[in-house]
Amino acid sequence: MQIRQLFDADTWTFTYLLWDEQSKEAAVIDSVLEQVDRDETHIRELGLKVKYLLETHIHADHITGAGPLRKRIGGELVVHKNSGSECADILAVDGDVFSLGEQKIEVVHTPGHTDNDITYKIDGAVFTGDTLMVRDCGRTDFQLGSNEAMYHSLTEILFKLPEDTMVFPAHDYKGFTQSTIGEEKYFNRRAGDRKSYQDFSTIMDSMNLPNPKRIDIAVPGNLKCGDLDD
Amino acid sequence: MQIRQLFDADTWTFTYLLWDEQSKEAAVIDSVLEQVDRDETHIRELGLKVKYLLETHIHADHITGAGPLRKRIGGELVVHKNSGSECADILAVDGDVFSLGEQKIEVVHTPGHTDNDITYKIDGAVFTGDTLMVRDCGRTDFQLGSNEAMYHSLTEILFKLPEDTMVFPAHDYKGFTQSTIGEEKYFNRRAGDRKSYQDFSTIMDSMNLPNPKRIDIAVPGNLKCGDLDD
Repeated sequence: MQIRQLFDADTWTFTYLLWDEQSKEAAVIDSVLEQVDRDETHIRELGLKVKYLLETHIHADHITGAGPLRKRIGGELVVHKNSGSECADILAVDGDVFSLGEQKIEVVHTPGHTDNDITYKIDGAVFTGDTLMVRDCGRTDFQLGSNEAMYHSLTEILFKLPEDTMVFPAHDYKGFTQSTIGEEKYFNRRAGDRKSYQDFSTIMDSMNLPNPKRIDIAVPGNLKCGDLDD
Repeated sequence: MQIRQLFDADTWTFTYLLWDEQSKEAAVIDSVLEQVDRDETHIRELGLKVKYLLETHIHADHITGAGPLRKRIGGELVVHKNSGSECADILAVDGDVFSLGEQKIEVVHTPGHTDNDITYKIDGAVFTGDTLMVRDCGRTDFQLGSNEAMYHSLTEILFKLPEDTMVFPAHDYKGFTQSTIGEEKYFNRRAGDRKSYQDFSTIMDSMNLPNPKRIDIAVPGNLKCGDLDD
């Protein structure tokens, strides 16, 4: 599987293009509304046929470009069933598999940041959304987030993958772009190095983060799949 | 060769860690002074032995972290001979080869942005500094830059590499993180699609860019390898 990482500097969001080299069938993970022109041009230059527009969750910090991209270049829009999205084509659940040519993308439900977080798993890599981030994890204090669910997703699901599995998060705020399961298992500041649930929970509860600036427009915008004019 | 891309958001600079998985011997390409703490921690967590601190050129937009990293974690500092650097350990020229375990890094002189640009070439990938950037190239209007040299470096050296060679630039300002030689040969806005030297030169001469904000501190800082207190 070919992987291309794209970045939106305003919201520190990573978008990913995945494609099967032989068939040119492609998926876009977590596009950003303001980058739809860039992404459309890039996809056309690469000669890709977009089959899926995959969302890792209903974002609170940016509006997805998935709906507008669907109109321009096609593809089925995928969100987790718990999102209650009415504009998605597929409401995915744990274990669902999407194919790009011979390549497989597996849905792994990894809630904690929200109740609808999906990790997309391919051979050798995971796209972990706001669940597992480099040395970090997503906040758990809104959108049906949960310390218990996050700890379970990190330590019982993701950290049990092979240690050389590459980790591609939805965001990074320190300039990291990727990691591996092995690194996060040992060095993740919140849940790594066999931290107990109690220690993890104390760290998460002490963050006192302000609400994301765009939450009041981002969540409703994302429940429309970014098609703001519809 | 393992490759890890790191980003400095203030100057839109990519730093790269390269390492040989077996021996853990590593090189750092284009570190940034303000990110030395992050990079040192990351290198130590990954268990790497830094052998080389490689600069693609004397930068005008940020100060290198190579000198400070050399003091903290070791490694020989490499800059092109034309830079006239007095703090580098190795003044490299075209064709020089550096080894990390069994892996080789080759020096390819690709001037145009300055007179001292190096592309570092490994098996399957090139680190092209400010010479070749995604759909773009570095400016040529100061620091002994030259349209002629840039056009030659792009079309006669880099575009002649295998088309699937991955391209990792020193900067990007639109959220791209990598490309391939094939893509740039066809889609590079300045020199791709068989643009003539005349067309290329007209584009480059019409840019009228302001000087980089930090040029007056960056160039002298880089001629000290980032060791500002020495």
